[in-house]
Amino acid sequence: MEGISAEASSLAGHLKLDNLILLYDSNNITIEGSTDITFSDDTAKRYESYGWKVYTADGHNKEEIKKVIEEAISYKGAPKLIIFKTHIAYGTPTKQDSASSHGVPLGEDEIKEMKKKFGLPEDNWAEKYPEKAKELKIYREKEIPADFIDKLLEAVSEKAEATRVSSGNVIQKAGEVLPFITGGSADLEPSVKCHIKKAESIKPNDFAGRNQHFGIREHAMGAYMNGMALYGLFIPYGATFLVFSDYMRGAIRLSALMGTQVIYVFTHDSIFLGEDGPTHQPIEHIGSLRIIPNLTVIRPADAFETAVAWEMALKNKTGPTALILSRHNLPQLHKEKTMEAIEAVRKGGYIISKEEKAAKFVLIATGSEVSTAIEAQEILKSEGIDVRVVSMPVPEIFEKQSEEYQKSVILENIPIIAIEATRTRDWDRFVKDDGLVIGMKSFGHSAPAKVLAEKFGFTGKSIAEKVKKMGEN
Amino acid sequence: MEGISAEASSLAGHLKLDNLILLYDSNNITIEGSTDITFSDDTAKRYESYGWKVYTADGHNKEEIKKVIEEAISYKGAPKLIIFKTHIAYGTPTKQDSASSHGVPLGEDEIKEMKKKFGLPEDNWAEKYPEKAKELKIYREKEIPADFIDKLLEAVSEKAEATRVSSGNVIQKAGEVLPFITGGSADLEPSVKCHIKKAESIKPNDFAGRNQHFGIREHAMGAYMNGMALYGLFIPYGATFLVFSDYMRGAIRLSALMGTQVIYVFTHDSIFLGEDGPTHQPIEHIGSLRIIPNLTVIRPADAFETAVAWEMALKNKTGPTALILSRHNLPQLHKEKTMEAIEAVRKGGYIISKEEKAAKFVLIATGSEVSTAIEAQEILKSEGIDVRVVSMPVPEIFEKQSEEYQKSVILENIPIIAIEATRTRDWDRFVKDDGLVIGMKSFGHSAPAKVLAEKFGFTGKSIAEKVKKMGEN
Repeated sequence: MEGISAEASSLAGHLKLDNLILLYDSNNITIEGSTDITFSDDTAKRYESYGWKVYTADGHNKEEIKKVIEEAISYKGAPKLIIFKTHIAYGTPTKQDSASSHGVPLGEDEIKEMKKKFGLPEDNWAEKYPEKAKELKIYREKEIPADFIDKLLEAVSEKAEATRVSSGNVIQKAGEVLPFITGGSADLEPSVKCHIKKAESIKPNDFAGRNQHFGIREHAMGAYMNGMALYGLFIPYGATFLVFSDYMRGAIRLSALMGTQVIYVFTHDSIFLGEDGPTHQPIEHIGSLRIIPNLTVIRPADAFETAVAWEMALKNKTGPTALILSRHNLPQLHKEKTMEAIEAVRKGGYIISKEEKAAKFVLIATGSEVSTAIEAQEILKSEGIDVRVVSMPVPEIFEKQSEEYQKSVILENIPIIAIEATRTRDWDRFVKDDGLVIGMKSFGHSAPAKVLAEKFGFTGKSIAEKVKKMGEN
Repeated sequence: MEGISAEASSLAGHLKLDNLILLYDSNNITIEGSTDITFSDDTAKRYESYGWKVYTADGHNKEEIKKVIEEAISYKGAPKLIIFKTHIAYGTPTKQDSASSHGVPLGEDEIKEMKKKFGLPEDNWAEKYPEKAKELKIYREKEIPADFIDKLLEAVSEKAEATRVSSGNVIQKAGEVLPFITGGSADLEPSVKCHIKKAESIKPNDFAGRNQHFGIREHAMGAYMNGMALYGLFIPYGATFLVFSDYMRGAIRLSALMGTQVIYVFTHDSIFLGEDGPTHQPIEHIGSLRIIPNLTVIRPADAFETAVAWEMALKNKTGPTALILSRHNLPQLHKEKTMEAIEAVRKGGYIISKEEKAAKFVLIATGSEVSTAIEAQEILKSEGIDVRVVSMPVPEIFEKQSEEYQKSVILENIPIIAIEATRTRDWDRFVKDDGLVIGMKSFGHSAPAKVLAEKFGFTGKSIAEKVKKMGEN
């Protein structure tokens, strides 16, 4: 019944995944009672409509089960559904019947026989096929070379660009070095920029490509990526608009719980996507992702931070990472691509624009608001108010740094202003009674990004005025 | 492609909604290109499998369009899908052709003729059927009587019980007074207790009942409720486990954005649901719901607060409400059901257990943690440490009270300890540098509730120890 089953089954049918056999234990019982209460689907017909081959069998008849599974294994060209008609808690199984077929390992000899029967390699595969074994090793180990960041930094542009574009450029470089990364989007490729240009797309009967087309199926995209990561040979990434992350939270949560290395690429990350309006403008999404345990959420401020963010995601082997990217162009804030600058981003938070002499305020910002904070700093400087600007792409990683480092970045006993165009409680712990959070309280509006920046107070001028007012009090 | 279309269409087919006609503009184009890239469904067959009547027609042929719509209208016994084969941006429409058929109101005479043709009442319906008109008025106005809360309080038990059970008892009382409330659950009725016992269930061909069976279709449940609320004659409620709120966030967000009066009943609200383990234990959900603009999230501490919470939800006409309810039994904390006590809950936060003389600490808690905080207060009292306990079912409403009231509840210059078995940043703004948040940092574990309370520090004893330690520093 769950929609994700429709999403996943439709995609499997389209891709003709004929090594997939789905066993459906059809006992007509749900928690509320008989499925008749809410369910009249003709399941066989439904799966045929997805392009599956469908079988029906008695789920209590061992001979019939064996026969139908063998038939399904030998059928080629489509995924297979076997509907086993069963009765829940059917009869009372004798110990004798269950002992040999249930809960006991098959044993080495039986496995060898079974492999032979199904035409699977028995053993010594690596000796027989040393080249293939070598290739498999690369996919199994998924090693990131030591100089990997240098490669990614080749993609960093000097002109202003959206971080979704920067991300697309970084993926080209990452794809050249790492054969085991593969991904795509939920029907938004022209917008989310996730296509590896030098690679083919995955198609029915042709899985040599590296670009995936998930269709308009966000939840299935997340589940699909979890499956790929658990399989062990790939690091998958999947992209959509940040606001649609809601559709796939079930899968994101499972990535975090299972600790799968999955990379979620979420673009169009704020009201600044503009005219598509409040249905498409994420407000609560960054905050609601940050509180999922074991999910690393990174919101880079420019192309340089985006390159380091991708490196962090590809090295984060114990859980999923979400990259939060802008639709609109952002200025490049990093003139020098030094190891020190790389290390600073990796620390989750760092001084991106220092005060002249003695800071009266510290402005913390993320993503597109970092350059706005630097604009505010300029304006304030011209009026004799000296402030520091901190970029904090990952507050949770910043808080893992030494207390000494943290204090050197967000100075003690100085009012802190946190700026992020989102509705979140994530900054309350940084901003004490004498500070201020500049964020979103309501849903957005449909208007050009510039108009929205004025309306909701995300301009250098508006921020500078708020800071000045705080100085007067 | 989206899973919700499968969920909703399956349910519509099951209920044989024959006044529903879905027009499918099938132009074979998605954002990434031709639908061939990711889609091979036989859509007609798929909808037939849901029990729909399916038509196919040329979407550019006016005569054919008219004919097929008339056919669909007259067909009874199933919802109807008309697949219109179209070409996007087909041809160049002349002004002449579009003027009469597109974007211009039909005019009163034409509407009268059309109504006559389809057997709809022309006008003067209210005069012809005064009894029905009276009934319709009740459903349109959805008035809550002045003494409504008294009725709900009749449901409040004196013995310990889970707030999901309290909620079920309150629904019985509400259902007696308000004919326009209707709801159900996504296949969890035995657990979420949302059934109006004196009413029938909605069935195919029989819509007189008030209990809905949504099936295992959370996203469709939310969308269905939004539709009912927009229709204007009902206040719908829908229940599932809090952890499954993730599956329906798309619909919850739309409730908030559109301001529909929809009541989400989320039970099994913490790790204390026990053995079902981390997949079922909500950790980040309360926090991620609280940051959706215009969604009121209420987490009651006992049966009395649950009754007031339902009243608040039924009176909240400008947006959705989420009720967050426990699986496990909670003691009844309200001995006297006075107007003062009712008003206190409505304020979003209030003193539930006062200090003896002068409080050294203020403990803020919600839901099941309120009684735990009171246990801690008892232990601390026996050791000579005087503390106050505040129940805060809705922090956002508490913050709308006068500054004077807020300060009278959470005293100034006294350390605050916030206790909630969830992962959220919602308490950072209450708890200053000298305070403490006792919450969840990780996912939960599968174990009995008591064991988990010990492990994660949600016992009166554990909290008392932490408070004592703070007193020593």
